[in-house]
Amino acid sequence: MSREVTIYDIAKELNISAATVSRSLKNHPAISDKTKQKILATAKEMGYRSNTFARNLRRQKTNTLGVIVPRLNSTFMSEVIAGMEKVANEAGYNLIISQSLEMMKKEAINAATMFNNRVDGLLVSLAYDTDSIAHFEPFIQKNIPLLFFDRICDQQQYAGIVINNYQAAYEITAHLIEQGCQNLFHITGNLSRNVYADRFNGFRQALADHQINHSPEYLLINNLSAQEGKATAHLLLQKKTLPDGVFVANDTCAVACMLELMEKGIRIPEDIAFTGFNNDPISWVVKPQLTTVHYKGFDMGETAAQTLINRLNHGQEASNQTIVLPHELISRQSSLKHATS
Amino acid sequence: MSREVTIYDIAKELNISAATVSRSLKNHPAISDKTKQKILATAKEMGYRSNTFARNLRRQKTNTLGVIVPRLNSTFMSEVIAGMEKVANEAGYNLIISQSLEMMKKEAINAATMFNNRVDGLLVSLAYDTDSIAHFEPFIQKNIPLLFFDRICDQQQYAGIVINNYQAAYEITAHLIEQGCQNLFHITGNLSRNVYADRFNGFRQALADHQINHSPEYLLINNLSAQEGKATAHLLLQKKTLPDGVFVANDTCAVACMLELMEKGIRIPEDIAFTGFNNDPISWVVKPQLTTVHYKGFDMGETAAQTLINRLNHGQEASNQTIVLPHELISRQSSLKHATS
Repeated sequence: MSREVTIYDIAKELNISAATVSRSLKNHPAISDKTKQKILATAKEMGYRSNTFARNLRRQKTNTLGVIVPRLNSTFMSEVIAGMEKVANEAGYNLIISQSLEMMKKEAINAATMFNNRVDGLLVSLAYDTDSIAHFEPFIQKNIPLLFFDRICDQQQYAGIVINNYQAAYEITAHLIEQGCQNLFHITGNLSRNVYADRFNGFRQALADHQINHSPEYLLINNLSAQEGKATAHLLLQKKTLPDGVFVANDTCAVACMLELMEKGIRIPEDIAFTGFNNDPISWVVKPQLTTVHYKGFDMGETAAQTLINRLNHGQEASNQTIVLPHELISRQSSLKHATS
Repeated sequence: MSREVTIYDIAKELNISAATVSRSLKNHPAISDKTKQKILATAKEMGYRSNTFARNLRRQKTNTLGVIVPRLNSTFMSEVIAGMEKVANEAGYNLIISQSLEMMKKEAINAATMFNNRVDGLLVSLAYDTDSIAHFEPFIQKNIPLLFFDRICDQQQYAGIVINNYQAAYEITAHLIEQGCQNLFHITGNLSRNVYADRFNGFRQALADHQINHSPEYLLINNLSAQEGKATAHLLLQKKTLPDGVFVANDTCAVACMLELMEKGIRIPEDIAFTGFNNDPISWVVKPQLTTVHYKGFDMGETAAQTLINRLNHGQEASNQTIVLPHELISRQSSLKHATS
């Protein structure tokens, strides 16, 4: 890499003082517009880089926000990241992103890298198997703002951005019951994660409130991939009694499971009413279209980044307040038994 | 933010010399393992941060790679970013990401920010309307590695990672012709972008090689969104003669267009055979399943990041070599006229 161009090089090139160059680059009123323009043009031509980097070092700020997510290649997470980037970019912050690949171990390594690179703040959605947040302690010790989103930490003292997963699951389950379902199953992920625990609790409470007895095998836990959705279809087919309604905690698994059951001659929604979660594009493309819960990943990303930046720019105190974003039940053909019978 | 912990603070805490602390943190052989362990434990407890940041400043390296993409919230791009992050993370680089939102103006602003933040290298997929790459000149002047991927620069001197879009489009068009299609239409994006120009050229060449005459209105250009796909279905329905085969340059637009035509009573593939591009999840979820071209975004991301890192770590000369990754035609029900008739 070639040597860095300095204000002295520009001064020499134009045969003027370094002070004039420095003042011009800072848009000082004492320098004429004509001189400023000439200096700016020369600086650009010579490849001068403004001293963002050195200035950040002096200010002990890097103007970067760290982001750690389970996986970058998910429809929901790509929306979240797009929302974060928009807000961060407009506020003059860069985003350093990394993925834990659903492993606490990698999440901890990524957190240490972010710490050593001195991010000004950190946004985290926890990995599938994270059962301790000790790896974020260095941020807390140093008062570096730390904010969880979607998959948040269940300890009260940490702030997080979420939707009301309990309520959303309650609504979708009540919807299945209203459609006449009496033997409901729930397919979900690791119940240590708030999103899955809250959805399961909402599901159970809706059953209890409607005096619905459930089969002892009504809960199926997998990693919510398309592959596991297909495998779970075969598990369901082996049950003595088929469920008449299934609530799956994401659309990917719901669609794969539903399509496999249809392959085997099961009618949706007549035999089994199906519901998912996330409102991914596949949910409206599949036939019958999938009933699901819509929540805006983009908005969650915007809100998370904005909350963190407010804390950085206005020195807002770290708060343990949880911000709850809206969700919406989208009912479609996959669960509307009444409409089709 | 609290004051930064230094090696002097650690030395004071343990009542030992700063030199011993410094040597221990560098794993110097002269220091006993017992002392090293005690010092490391204390350093961690006190929140000491290794001097990655300061070291980078001295080395004139930031160990960050900049990434500019049109949109982060696309299935394909989220796969690319996931692949880049994996390779970068393993090689000790951070990824700073930004999106141009398909606007050259924002792409130029993002490039300037990356330049001023001294990224070690830059990975770019061009915006929809970029018609000059003058905003990347500062990188070229300073010999900062610059690599385009997917939507690359058409100037020979710049390296890029692509698939053979021409060949893929030729294959999918020949497939439609083999299925008996005689009146083929192509729906695509801005022809200034290599990906769309190459696909159009492959389409045209396949028609020419098979002596297929085409309607003068056989090319439809839009932004390839689901919304425009739906609108284009209505444009097609207004044509004097319906096409009997349609090749769309992405799956999102293809699926939306196809579903809207089916709503209006058009049979797929009997009346119109349909094909897309990308092999997004929606392409296998839709009924009939969509014939498409598969290429691995994840692999493209890995290859792009690895190529850039090789150049940085081994001082490999900037090359104008274009790396062409494999693609695969996936034929499904949406285009198989013979199988269904």
